[in-house]
Amino acid sequence: MSPEPDLRHHGDAEVRTPGLVDLAVNVRTGTPPDWLRERLAATLGDLAAYPDGTAARAAVAARHGRPVAEVLLTSGAAEAFVLLARVLRPRRATVVHPQFTEPEAALRDAGHPVHRALLTADAGFRLTPGAVPDDADLVVVGNPTNPTSVLHPAAAVAALARPGRTLVVDEAFMDAVPGEPESLAAVRDLPGQVVVLRSLTKTWGLAGLRIGYVLGPAALIAELAAAQPLWPVSTPALVAAEACSSPAALAEAEQAAEATAEQRTYLLKGLATLPGVRVHGEPAASFVLIELAGAAGVRERLRAAGFAVRRGDTFPGLGTDWLRIAVRDERTTDRFLAALAAVVGV
Amino acid sequence: MSPEPDLRHHGDAEVRTPGLVDLAVNVRTGTPPDWLRERLAATLGDLAAYPDGTAARAAVAARHGRPVAEVLLTSGAAEAFVLLARVLRPRRATVVHPQFTEPEAALRDAGHPVHRALLTADAGFRLTPGAVPDDADLVVVGNPTNPTSVLHPAAAVAALARPGRTLVVDEAFMDAVPGEPESLAAVRDLPGQVVVLRSLTKTWGLAGLRIGYVLGPAALIAELAAAQPLWPVSTPALVAAEACSSPAALAEAEQAAEATAEQRTYLLKGLATLPGVRVHGEPAASFVLIELAGAAGVRERLRAAGFAVRRGDTFPGLGTDWLRIAVRDERTTDRFLAALAAVVGV
Repeated sequence: MSPEPDLRHHGDAEVRTPGLVDLAVNVRTGTPPDWLRERLAATLGDLAAYPDGTAARAAVAARHGRPVAEVLLTSGAAEAFVLLARVLRPRRATVVHPQFTEPEAALRDAGHPVHRALLTADAGFRLTPGAVPDDADLVVVGNPTNPTSVLHPAAAVAALARPGRTLVVDEAFMDAVPGEPESLAAVRDLPGQVVVLRSLTKTWGLAGLRIGYVLGPAALIAELAAAQPLWPVSTPALVAAEACSSPAALAEAEQAAEATAEQRTYLLKGLATLPGVRVHGEPAASFVLIELAGAAGVRERLRAAGFAVRRGDTFPGLGTDWLRIAVRDERTTDRFLAALAAVVGV
Repeated sequence: MSPEPDLRHHGDAEVRTPGLVDLAVNVRTGTPPDWLRERLAATLGDLAAYPDGTAARAAVAARHGRPVAEVLLTSGAAEAFVLLARVLRPRRATVVHPQFTEPEAALRDAGHPVHRALLTADAGFRLTPGAVPDDADLVVVGNPTNPTSVLHPAAAVAALARPGRTLVVDEAFMDAVPGEPESLAAVRDLPGQVVVLRSLTKTWGLAGLRIGYVLGPAALIAELAAAQPLWPVSTPALVAAEACSSPAALAEAEQAAEATAEQRTYLLKGLATLPGVRVHGEPAASFVLIELAGAAGVRERLRAAGFAVRRGDTFPGLGTDWLRIAVRDERTTDRFLAALAAVVGV
């Protein structure tokens, strides 16, 4: 019996030691880009005014082809999980694991018991029929999933929607997938309530700014908005949301996603040469999950060699034999692979 | 019987029409200062990292001479009201009115009935013995109070503290008072739980950045922190909190407070020459509350003349004969007083 994982551990805790090469945090390096930094700098003279989210909300709505009333801007996706946990009254909440732990933590904090639907390495961490109990009235699933990097087909996720159920799809990493073919962000005709969470943090390097958004039925969006504090999103974050929804920004994000896919292929090719390192399923996001006997010790030795990777044991369904590795440029990947090879004794 | 006031109306709604001279929003003009803008601009390259509040929290603690465990940084004071409403379980919550309406709105949203303790114009909006019911286990009071501008003596506020009661003192405007002689921010030995809320928004022009903080007993601070979303305060906001707690920043705030006091005296002198305009109590903050028959219509005519002032009728205990006016530089005040004189027919 493994100990209960620490749901409140996140990758940022792994890079607090200065000087480590960061493969623990899933934020694209070299971000935010200069043009975005300039847009943000231009807001600094307007900070005396209270934030007004009108333009940002309209831009996000237009980007996903949805009415404004179906969009809520939040102080990062983390705020969205807290709002959902406070507003919804699930009798049987189910979180599909392994995945980002904050949704479960927020639900538990709000007093809701949480059932864990565990996807398995043997099945490549794919959604399998029957994984989610029929009577679940709230289902949270990540797509692509952190930390498994698995991208579920839109049809498989949509099949979880049904009358009387709220389906929450965490698409925080969807913009790392070229073309976003499996996204439900623009789908509005599924049964029950379908809620899609998105982030601007990873692709645009805005983790420090706290900006994300929720797409969902207008009535639920209104309830979530009523549960937010007054002026929940800062002016620079609103400007970022607007700027990153423009056609030019979307084209840039698409290029970044394609570059990430190439870099991921490179990383996977290197990992395949290392004995004992296993990758389950088909990674599709900006990170890769590996299984490796004694990974906890490997992680410590990688730190000593100057590389921070994300521990796997804080994710329900994984354990001390798992690590999550961010996709980086080929040069950084080469250095990392050399360090990993040395640690595992190749 | 006057209609129930709209607790969710705030001054920023009055300045959405471009071109109006803003005497509605209580944020100091000409802010943020250049040095602060530069500090904030320097954070824009670091936004890819998740926020780390350690340094900011330590700086705020040092500024008020309190342990770090007694400080919570929040996404504006507005978040603090929501957190308090969610964490506390008052049987009899009492809000001292007229005052900023968000604490009452947050308490009601969280399902807590709210008793209103009304201070009266006849008593100069001063705290009077017996104003607060003995059995109130949660008391919220502003000092200096928005919108009355009245500064209660620290002893009168401290007298509200007692075992079994949580006393919340909203000191969002305290840094507009030179020397802050009536602040309870550094007082730690009162009975019951005493919580002080502070803002950096008004003096430093950071309304758009969302930054404030809570000072209180460590156990309560820990509970409030647990109710916050992950990474609740953005990196630029954390840097602002740290920067504005420095001795140099405090000296600058003190000068600003002294200038505001002079400008307020000038405004009050002008208002005293206008027939029908009455000021109750002794204004001490960066705004002044006036009583004037037909103020709602006066406000409309002031808008037509290019000046936005804050309506008074959304504050419990006031009504359509009240307006709140921000203290501005003498030139702006002269122009405003001339417009007001014309409107009231002098």
